[in-house]
Order: sequence, then C-alpha cells, then structure tokens
Amino acid sequence: MKKPLILVTNDDSIVAPGIRFLIDVMKEIGEVIVVAPDSPQSGMGHAITINNTLHIDKVNLDKEIEHEYSCSGTPVDCVKMAVHEILKKKPDLCVSGINHGSNSSINVIYSGTMSAAVEAGIEGIPAIGFSHLDYSWETNFEPTREYVKKITQEVLKNGLPEGVVLNVNFPKASKGVINGIKVCRQAKAMWVEEFDKRTNPQGKEYYWLTGEFVNKDEGEDTDEWALENNYVSVVPVQFDLTAHQVIKTLNNWDLK
Amino acid sequence: MKKPLILVTNDDSIVAPGIRFLIDVMKEIGEVIVVAPDSPQSGMGHAITINNTLHIDKVNLDKEIEHEYSCSGTPVDCVKMAVHEILKKKPDLCVSGINHGSNSSINVIYSGTMSAAVEAGIEGIPAIGFSHLDYSWETNFEPTREYVKKITQEVLKNGLPEGVVLNVNFPKASKGVINGIKVCRQAKAMWVEEFDKRTNPQGKEYYWLTGEFVNKDEGEDTDEWALENNYVSVVPVQFDLTAHQVIKTLNNWDLK
Repeated sequence: MKKPLILVTNDDSIVAPGIRFLIDVMKEIGEVIVVAPDSPQSGMGHAITINNTLHIDKVNLDKEIEHEYSCSGTPVDCVKMAVHEILKKKPDLCVSGINHGSNSSINVIYSGTMSAAVEAGIEGIPAIGFSHLDYSWETNFEPTREYVKKITQEVLKNGLPEGVVLNVNFPKASKGVINGIKVCRQAKAMWVEEFDKRTNPQGKEYYWLTGEFVNKDEGEDTDEWALENNYVSVVPVQFDLTAHQVIKTLNNWDLK
Repeated sequence: MKKPLILVTNDDSIVAPGIRFLIDVMKEIGEVIVVAPDSPQSGMGHAITINNTLHIDKVNLDKEIEHEYSCSGTPVDCVKMAVHEILKKKPDLCVSGINHGSNSSINVIYSGTMSAAVEAGIEGIPAIGFSHLDYSWETNFEPTREYVKKITQEVLKNGLPEGVVLNVNFPKASKGVINGIKVCRQAKAMWVEEFDKRTNPQGKEYYWLTGEFVNKDEGEDTDEWALENNYVSVVPVQFDLTAHQVIKTLNNWDLK
C-alpha cells in the first residue's frame, strides 16, 4: 500500500519541539513534507500575507525528510504555499502543531495552529490541529504519541465530512493518567482582558495584552470539561460560519 | 432617550474613506467612539498582538467626535483596547468597516473587519461588519447610507441572539440600482491560489500571494447570489465553530 502524503505545519515555528515531535510521529504513518513558519506566529488567527512578499527556504532539520521548508509567512500562508507552489498537488492529510498551549474553546478563533488546519480543510484536505495545554518548550510530548497516532489513523481510514476539520487538545497529564479520548463541543468560554500599561524610556505609554480565561460553561460535553478531567478533547470544527438557525429570525425584521 | 454608544473600527486603518463614511452615518444614530488601526490590517483574520507592545494615540480627524484613537494593533486588538482600556465599559453596539473589498462567503475567515465584529460579539456586544465589493478608495459610499442606517437601527431595536454577529456586504451598484436587502447563508466558495514568483536584485526568489475566487455554489440563498443580483447581503455569523452534526459520526469511530 502506498504511504499517505502528510503535510506538517504549525504556528510556533519550524524549530519548536511540538512540531519536531509531530513530525516524528507522522514518519511512522506516512511520507512527510514540512512547510512551517520561520518565526513564531502565535495568535495570528487566519491571517494571510497580502501586503508583503513571501520567502521559502529549503532546510534539513530531519535527515530522514526530503522536503522540509521554512516560510516567512503565517501558518495559513504555509499551507497555501505547500499545496500550490511546493507540492503542486493535494497531500492526503495535513496536521498542524503540536501547539505549545491550549487551543480549546474560544482559543480556536485566535489560533494560528487551527487556522492552518482550517485552510487545509478549505482546500479539501483532511486536517487535524493538535495542541497541548502545557505552554513550556520543555513539555514531554511522549504521553500523547499513542493518541496522535490513533486519531490520525482514524482520519486517514474514515476521512472527514466536507467542511470539517478536527481540533485536538491534550491535557497536562503524564502517561497512564490520560483517561482516553472524548469527542466534544467547543465550550462557551472567553478571555477577560486586562492591559498591562507601562511607560517607555522616552516617557510614552504602551501596553501588553494580558487576560484571564473565564469558563462559565459547565457542560460535561465540552472540551474544557474533558481536559480538566484528563481526557484528550476532539472537537469537529467547521468553517461555514453561518448561524443558519438565525436566518428565520432576521427575515422577520424590517429589512425590506 | 439616551443616545446609544457606538464603537467604530475597521481593518483598512483609521484614515480609510470607508470608516470615515461609517463614522458619518453613525453620528446620525448615536454617540460615536472610534478606535481603529493606525495602518492597514487587511487579511489579518482574528490575529491578536501577544508578542509585541501596543500603542494608542488620541487623534482628532473628526471635530465632532471627542474620543477618537489610532491603535498600533490588529482590528481585534482595537476592540479589546476600546472595551477594556479606553471605555472601561461595553458600548451598545460595535460597527466595523466599511471595508474596501468583499468579505462575503469564505472571505469572512480572512477578514480583519469581520474579526473585529466577532471579537465584539465574544464580549457580548451586538456587532456588525460592513464591506463594499469595490476595493477602490474612490468608491462612492453614499448609495449604501440608507442600508447602513436601516440595518444598524434594526440591530439596536431587536438586539442579536447570543453568539451571533452580522456580516453585511454591499454590491457595486449605484443608488436606485440596489434591489434591497437579503438575509443569506455564506456561499461555499474559495480562493484558488497562485503564487507570483519573482527574483529580487540579489538573485533570491520571492513570492506574492495571488489567486482567483471560485464559487461553485449556485444557491439563491447565498450571499454571492444576492450580491450578483444587486442585493445587500446580510449573513448571521457565529463563533461557536463546533460542527455539532458531526459529533455523532465521530463517536462511532474507534477512538476509545
């Protein structure tokens, strides 16, 4: 059987431990091509580069991989570049991550990792974004290996419905402590922002974005519940953003 | 009756004709505060600034507005900054735009204009993103005035369901040619990318992202159909990205 062609990308940059681990797992499953940002792109959401040029450089961080490229753009740029310029064909699968930090609940909206997966989905490529709740670059990813493999193999076996990609998050738990996998919905949580106001050496004020994650959604069918209870959360994510159930309501408004 | 407090932002920067027009319309309806990017942020999606500092400057481009600020961040940063640092309270409404260029169908995903509206929605503020199919800064926005007013007033009167914001797009049509307003779903369309490959003076290759918009969705209930037929399109947009209908499918997979 021909090995599946797997595109690997992320948003923490091509040298991040999370993507190096993901590449290592994917080599067990298929033929791997890597196209990932040359610098960290966290919080880039679904940004694309339209007012600047893009550069790609062939690198060789893993001797076993023939096609590995760093790209000056965003995660979404990386996917576009991989499919339309480097491969000039669709891979069988796109995996993004493993992100250093959570992309559960509302974080999916701000996430470069998930946007790469969504972009692949738009292109008709089955796609999975993987994220780990532990931000540290010292994280031990090994306990996630069996789950990354299992979920990836199930996607390759079953395919994904049109217009849907997977958002997978791993709890901060060591091997044996993870209770298994739970398919979930996105919790209704949000960030409550605070701005850390400082003064620069010239006396001008500036700000750092900071904030607190607030989850008031106690549903046991949510990703936040699963992660708190040491499950791996899997949320099917769609990019048809239409609130179909609201169309009827709006048609009753005076909009003629 | 107390005038509603309306936050105006965009992604084309605070000096773009589209936001100046939108401010002008909003002054007829409520008390206006402007917090908008100090430079163009098109294609920024739901990006936030977490690895850099943020700056705000009080400006006075419109003598009738007391609170007008330019911000160094993305459209999403502008909304966060407005609500949590400048206003320190929620406005009654947030409007974003009018964008120079379409944010219909899949463009909603890449759009800084819509991300600002979505961010306001996450904060619990009724929000509308307005976009015009004409990219030109010379666009005559006057034919859109009555529709901007009507849709804004209906949102202020009826409110919006939790978790939903509006994506409004205007056709390239002059007054009298616009056929009215249609509530729609997001068309299943996409960009087929091409990269314009060039060589810099040092002999190194670089790329410009370019592409062709392809719509194979012929539904007469789509935003693309409405716009082609000179209607103003209104799509209710949600930020719960869960593909709820797929959870059952995934539960039948071997993921235990």
